[in-house]
Amino acid sequence: MTIKTETRRLKANSFKRSICPIACTLDLMGDKWTLLIIRDLFKGKHRYNQFHESGEGITTNILAERLQRLEKAGLVFKTPYQTRPVRYEYHLTDTGKTLDTVIWAIIEWANRQIPGTNKPKRSKMVKS
Amino acid sequence: MTIKTETRRLKANSFKRSICPIACTLDLMGDKWTLLIIRDLFKGKHRYNQFHESGEGITTNILAERLQRLEKAGLVFKTPYQTRPVRYEYHLTDTGKTLDTVIWAIIEWANRQIPGTNKPKRSKMVKS
Repeated sequence: MTIKTETRRLKANSFKRSICPIACTLDLMGDKWTLLIIRDLFKGKHRYNQFHESGEGITTNILAERLQRLEKAGLVFKTPYQTRPVRYEYHLTDTGKTLDTVIWAIIEWANRQIPGTNKPKRSKMVKS
Repeated sequence: MTIKTETRRLKANSFKRSICPIACTLDLMGDKWTLLIIRDLFKGKHRYNQFHESGEGITTNILAERLQRLEKAGLVFKTPYQTRPVRYEYHLTDTGKTLDTVIWAIIEWANRQIPGTNKPKRSKMVKS
């Protein structure tokens, strides 16, 4: 199975509220779940059952909606891993992978400021 | 008027879903508005009318709720600037100011990946 990756910048139609870079980013991922899905993709999770194994208890509806939104934004792409019934696995595009800087800024902030948060290892973050 | 600042780490009762640093951060600010308020505080805005001047159109209810939540979390403190009726202005605590790393990671990501987003200057970010 070949897995295509996609390199492109996000479309300017991401503007909903203003041209502020923070507002535009929050329009894409300003909720309690999207960055957890991106975290899981960085951790090498690709399939629904793997996302569900994460401790936060994401529902199937939210997972499906967020993955679709991330795909539409060009941050994630899907590829079938079985047919009859067709099932997909999800991967970060090259653009999606650039979110590692945001993910790590948050991890480092929380590790310093919220006692008791776990300390992920950067080496465990996969690149596909 | 003296303005007190507060230095403390966030309370561990921030844990709602897991001890993942990203999940804990999103429990505090995983929505479309909180980081915009923090952005405005970094830009030197402190009063309700100043927050309302920002282009995204935050409502008074959301602004009040988020400021209260940030205050409870120790990221923001309020101080009265007039009496009869009492009115408050809001400032980042020392802990709140440590969010500059997260804010800048998002700004830099969006400036690279979302064409047309404006490019704030770091020197315009005030420290109180």
